[in-house]
Amino acid sequence: MKVAKFGGSSVASAEQLKKVARIIESDESRRVVVVSAPGKRDDADTKVTDLLIELGQAFQNGEDTTDELNAVLSRFKQIITELDLTDRVLKDIKEDVHKLFTEGGDIDFKLEALKAIGEDSLAKVLSEYLVKVGMDATYLNPKDAGIMLSDEPGSAQILDESFDHIYNIRKRDQIVVIPGFFGYTKEGKLVTFSRGGSDITGSIVAAGVEAELYENFTDVDSVYCVNPQIVHNPKEITSLTYKEMRELSYAGFSVFHAEALIPAFKAEIPVSIKNTNNPNALGTIIVSRKEVRGDPVVGIASDKGFMSLYVSKYLMNREVGFGRRLLNILEDEGISYEHTPSGIDDLSVIIRENQMDEEKEQVVINRINQELNPDTVYTERGLALIMVVGEEMHCHVGTAAKAAQAIGDAGVNIEMINQGSSEVSLMFGIKEAGVKKAVQSLYNAFFE
Amino acid sequence: MKVAKFGGSSVASAEQLKKVARIIESDESRRVVVVSAPGKRDDADTKVTDLLIELGQAFQNGEDTTDELNAVLSRFKQIITELDLTDRVLKDIKEDVHKLFTEGGDIDFKLEALKAIGEDSLAKVLSEYLVKVGMDATYLNPKDAGIMLSDEPGSAQILDESFDHIYNIRKRDQIVVIPGFFGYTKEGKLVTFSRGGSDITGSIVAAGVEAELYENFTDVDSVYCVNPQIVHNPKEITSLTYKEMRELSYAGFSVFHAEALIPAFKAEIPVSIKNTNNPNALGTIIVSRKEVRGDPVVGIASDKGFMSLYVSKYLMNREVGFGRRLLNILEDEGISYEHTPSGIDDLSVIIRENQMDEEKEQVVINRINQELNPDTVYTERGLALIMVVGEEMHCHVGTAAKAAQAIGDAGVNIEMINQGSSEVSLMFGIKEAGVKKAVQSLYNAFFE
Repeated sequence: MKVAKFGGSSVASAEQLKKVARIIESDESRRVVVVSAPGKRDDADTKVTDLLIELGQAFQNGEDTTDELNAVLSRFKQIITELDLTDRVLKDIKEDVHKLFTEGGDIDFKLEALKAIGEDSLAKVLSEYLVKVGMDATYLNPKDAGIMLSDEPGSAQILDESFDHIYNIRKRDQIVVIPGFFGYTKEGKLVTFSRGGSDITGSIVAAGVEAELYENFTDVDSVYCVNPQIVHNPKEITSLTYKEMRELSYAGFSVFHAEALIPAFKAEIPVSIKNTNNPNALGTIIVSRKEVRGDPVVGIASDKGFMSLYVSKYLMNREVGFGRRLLNILEDEGISYEHTPSGIDDLSVIIRENQMDEEKEQVVINRINQELNPDTVYTERGLALIMVVGEEMHCHVGTAAKAAQAIGDAGVNIEMINQGSSEVSLMFGIKEAGVKKAVQSLYNAFFE
Repeated sequence: MKVAKFGGSSVASAEQLKKVARIIESDESRRVVVVSAPGKRDDADTKVTDLLIELGQAFQNGEDTTDELNAVLSRFKQIITELDLTDRVLKDIKEDVHKLFTEGGDIDFKLEALKAIGEDSLAKVLSEYLVKVGMDATYLNPKDAGIMLSDEPGSAQILDESFDHIYNIRKRDQIVVIPGFFGYTKEGKLVTFSRGGSDITGSIVAAGVEAELYENFTDVDSVYCVNPQIVHNPKEITSLTYKEMRELSYAGFSVFHAEALIPAFKAEIPVSIKNTNNPNALGTIIVSRKEVRGDPVVGIASDKGFMSLYVSKYLMNREVGFGRRLLNILEDEGISYEHTPSGIDDLSVIIRENQMDEEKEQVVINRINQELNPDTVYTERGLALIMVVGEEMHCHVGTAAKAAQAIGDAGVNIEMINQGSSEVSLMFGIKEAGVKKAVQSLYNAFFE
């Protein structure tokens, strides 16, 4: 059994939904479908979820809501007209909205319920269309699917007991279409995940039904081994592990909402990234443990906007708790850090620049001077990190040398190296100006 | 003005003291001399300080102390006989010991005073000999030199006000000979530094008199760029910075008691390591800031006996305080750590194996599992660290590549790399079995 999740661009129009239907039809193991709300049809378009948020705001402000509601209805009207479906979904939307606007209740939960109308309506539309073209499909509300969430509107978390309920979906004979993005509290109130939460629903359902595969249909053929804005026409990654995906997503690869994958990761379910517009493309598959592949490096990621905070003190390494106290100061000031490479008497903390503006920097430096009495403390901004990623790096002697050589050959100085004992990644810190040259050179060394 | 400190092997016998006198005579800027107690004359010998500790133990146990006292006296008797000096020092020792054994007072302070007799007597002997051979020299007691210490027997700390007093030594016309290893509290009680504390006295006096140079006479010509037990007949280091010395001393280079140098380091006084037995050898000089030398690497050090504690957790880097909480557990369990290389979702802590036996390891792993709920936690023992050290590494593109290449060429896999933004050192973690091959290969790459 496969769980197929279709993102906003895959369900943005009637034309796209026809592709989705053909994809579902082409593989009978695709028995559970999770959908987003209709996304943008072109750059100038507005996502249905954003239209619903505007509707909610107008209502909250006591303004007239006719235009906002009509904008939502018109998106769905166009879809059902082109698919030649009944107008039941339009009636449902009007009824649901009317009820929310007129009945009592907490405004926060009204806004939550409004936001979820896009996914909910699309699931109804798609299931009706699937039946129309001859499939035995049905809409399944998240409550009936068993998706029970914590009472945290806008950032709800799955409750552990949900998975047993969701497992029962396996017993159904029909193809079920479940709206993503929301579920229900134990008290029956509708709550949503964080934005982009349809990925979370897909991952939860895949884990719950113990799917053989979680297919995530989007609008790219696959994940590239390097940022295509830096390297022209780079190679595609056919398969990578969860760990590799995480290391890559750190710096520039953003195919996934990483949190979304937690349930699938824990259940060790492989995730396939596929293109709705080109379903025959191989795509990229994310697995728990990969078979031996032979290549040490699977991808190269890079990101700018880092800074280092450097602290040195003669005999630092004899001072018990020095590093911990430094990290305490940062935590105290609300700054999260990325890495802490260290020498004997010095310690650098790598921080995203947006974590520490000039004013905050002064506060932190003053506290370090007062509380830790160092010999030197200073910061350096404008750093970039490059991640060279691959689970097999640890069994290839010389990978680090090859990578460092490639960066040196590009004339770029390495400011920092950080390789953990896991050896899934090798991180280089360089000045931002050198990123393009260094990444191109690394690509040539490992992929050409 | 130079401060010359002579270590235990340099003052172990009359023959050695003659060399010391010639060294002092050969440079009239050597105006302040600090001495250790007589050390071993050969491998089977016992240091005078150890004889004094035995004397103190016998006294404390209420045993007969005649043999122990005679052992001390006999060492000095042999020296003064061969140098043809008066026996005043023997009378002083007997008198001091008798006073300590018969007068009232705290046992801890009696033991302290006994321990200091070696340095004190040797300073008297040397000053008398210098006068005898025609120099204008005098013994100077630490109290008169102004060395005022905190009331911490066996690990006393210098009091800041001492330095002003010590500065007055500049005004003296004579060569002064100061015994190392001890000083006095404000109440006038004798207290000692930690063992090896003559280096501390030398460094304090050099800082106090604002010496142009602190000469540390020992029994090696210089510091080698790599452990001579690994590489046959390696190159000598002529000059290195304090920072480089510290990074090297981390892993196998132990010329210095690193704490000893703090006063000299703070006063930015260069330290020269010279050989009493070969004073014309260039030696090694340790400076605050070195002039540009052109070579990126000054030395390679290595040490075994490390282990790594590996912790991974999906989305670790979103969990504020994860690293800090891990370090808290270690601190709580009394474990100090060396480095913390990290990936996105994993963190390794490098620890000296002697910090964590199997039992303690189980406690730590249990706490990590309970308090941090990681996906994986395990340890790996039998690691070695190699430090490639040089202040100029940061202005040489390709040093890291060259080093990693050399290790790879030796067929050794790199488990871990840690390079801080200071770039004074580049640290590699490898399995212990590969150390010799890796260090030899690095030596060939950077020094041959």
